[in-house]
Amino acid sequence: MKCRRCKAPAVIDIRRHNAAFCLDCFLHHCREQVRKAIHEYKMFSPEDRVLVAVSGGKDSLALWDLLVDLDYEVDGLYLGLGIGEYSTESGVHTRQFAAERGLKLHEVDLPSDHGFDIPGAAQVTRRSPCGACGLSKRHLFNSTALEHGYDVVATGHNLDDEAAVLLGNVLRWDTGYLGRQHPVLPATPGFVRKVKPLVRLGERETAAYCVLRGIDYQVEECPMAEGNRHLGYKEVLNALEDRSPGSKAAFLFGFIERGHERFAGDAEHERDELGACTVCGAPTPGDVCAFCRLRSQVGALQIEVR
Amino acid sequence: MKCRRCKAPAVIDIRRHNAAFCLDCFLHHCREQVRKAIHEYKMFSPEDRVLVAVSGGKDSLALWDLLVDLDYEVDGLYLGLGIGEYSTESGVHTRQFAAERGLKLHEVDLPSDHGFDIPGAAQVTRRSPCGACGLSKRHLFNSTALEHGYDVVATGHNLDDEAAVLLGNVLRWDTGYLGRQHPVLPATPGFVRKVKPLVRLGERETAAYCVLRGIDYQVEECPMAEGNRHLGYKEVLNALEDRSPGSKAAFLFGFIERGHERFAGDAEHERDELGACTVCGAPTPGDVCAFCRLRSQVGALQIEVR
Repeated sequence: MKCRRCKAPAVIDIRRHNAAFCLDCFLHHCREQVRKAIHEYKMFSPEDRVLVAVSGGKDSLALWDLLVDLDYEVDGLYLGLGIGEYSTESGVHTRQFAAERGLKLHEVDLPSDHGFDIPGAAQVTRRSPCGACGLSKRHLFNSTALEHGYDVVATGHNLDDEAAVLLGNVLRWDTGYLGRQHPVLPATPGFVRKVKPLVRLGERETAAYCVLRGIDYQVEECPMAEGNRHLGYKEVLNALEDRSPGSKAAFLFGFIERGHERFAGDAEHERDELGACTVCGAPTPGDVCAFCRLRSQVGALQIEVR
Repeated sequence: MKCRRCKAPAVIDIRRHNAAFCLDCFLHHCREQVRKAIHEYKMFSPEDRVLVAVSGGKDSLALWDLLVDLDYEVDGLYLGLGIGEYSTESGVHTRQFAAERGLKLHEVDLPSDHGFDIPGAAQVTRRSPCGACGLSKRHLFNSTALEHGYDVVATGHNLDDEAAVLLGNVLRWDTGYLGRQHPVLPATPGFVRKVKPLVRLGERETAAYCVLRGIDYQVEECPMAEGNRHLGYKEVLNALEDRSPGSKAAFLFGFIERGHERFAGDAEHERDELGACTVCGAPTPGDVCAFCRLRSQVGALQIEVR
């Protein structure tokens, strides 16, 4: 197996591209895919201040590394979720990555800054921990970016993540979610721009990138996500991809090119109906935003929520 | 396990409805689901002459039986595909069903009427036999219905079939196919109306219906379809359905309610560009329709096709 670019012995093959690469050309490939995504979807320019949401896992550390490498002005944000050993180690990996490279890292800690953790929230709400985790992340990534004047929040969602989310949205024909699923969510009143520069790289590629770049990441998957639907959708798509390489990318990019626009109106409609949370001021369809309602439910905020 | 309707001991449970039925109430359930589909999608009225495409398998024989039972005026059409023993047996089951009930059955035989069979077509075109089979069926169902003055062609596509086709169309975001995927395809110049009255019944239900009604159907699956994509999509959807009963129906009916209309324009656009086949007069985007081109390729028709 030879490198497609330089004909040296290859270290990795990527079936959907029908290509193999040596170490240097693979790193080049990853940078090019990210560069292409940023330009194709007009994610941000060198003048923009970018905040990367970093979990300490392969995707977000690869993303931070790649964006720094591409000369963007980019700081990190680590959110402590209070998920025992898993969170402790995630924090260690993230801080170590930032310190070794002299990069600026913001930290928000759910337990100490907001009075609850994800396992506790799941217990009190009697719902999936992934729900509480997702809404906390969305809220705090956005509010931290606004607070510190960043133009855009970048997350490490890769091709596999996005295809799995799309499959879930399509299986339910959730038209609002379909309208919002895009590599770029433009800024709207109260929301900074959100971008996903890894959308052209699979998770096998981001893992290989970290290994080959010597990035020490948190290998464990979140213990609370086990058996969730999202992972089931990933399995299904992996089975289809095995049978027919490239089908995952065709699914996601086919949607972006020929599907998304047809649902965009549904998402706009939802956005138009947002007011300001009476507690924190964040945009919300009700009086109190989902994050403040969660804080109230877990007893970390003393408000009357209907 | 007791029957939901009459509390007698149940013979079958249907997880997506969270229900079980005794024999009589299960047959009632099947009739109601078909009645509901016909009314909901305005498939046809008692005045319409309906032609059912019958393969001798569980779905099409159940459909014919159900439509007769619901007092519609409905004749059958059997298409001989020339797939060895499989086709021979399919024909026997179909003729026996019609004869026992005194129903009118039209027959078209690919080898004797059109000079080729599906295995031969697959060999000559070096493409999937399912492609040649599908296009022959679409062509001959329509031309036979037109020839004998039927208003509508009904096919035995069930919930599992339609969900699998939808998954394939969505994975490729094939917008023309998505625009055409609906339980009713209205008549357009050169095309009779096409309807799928079994769309609310799963294939486990149509099989049980035949068994409980004493209908002797062809149990073997087509030997040429083995390993095709459609069956892969069915497996994937079955895995999702096992995990979360009702997800297959939510996927299909969510599309019909909230997705289909957004793609309907793409299908109309394709229809607007059709002319008449210079050989047989059927609607086609080119000079010669796909069926006549296939006949020419297999040497059954002497024409110059570019």
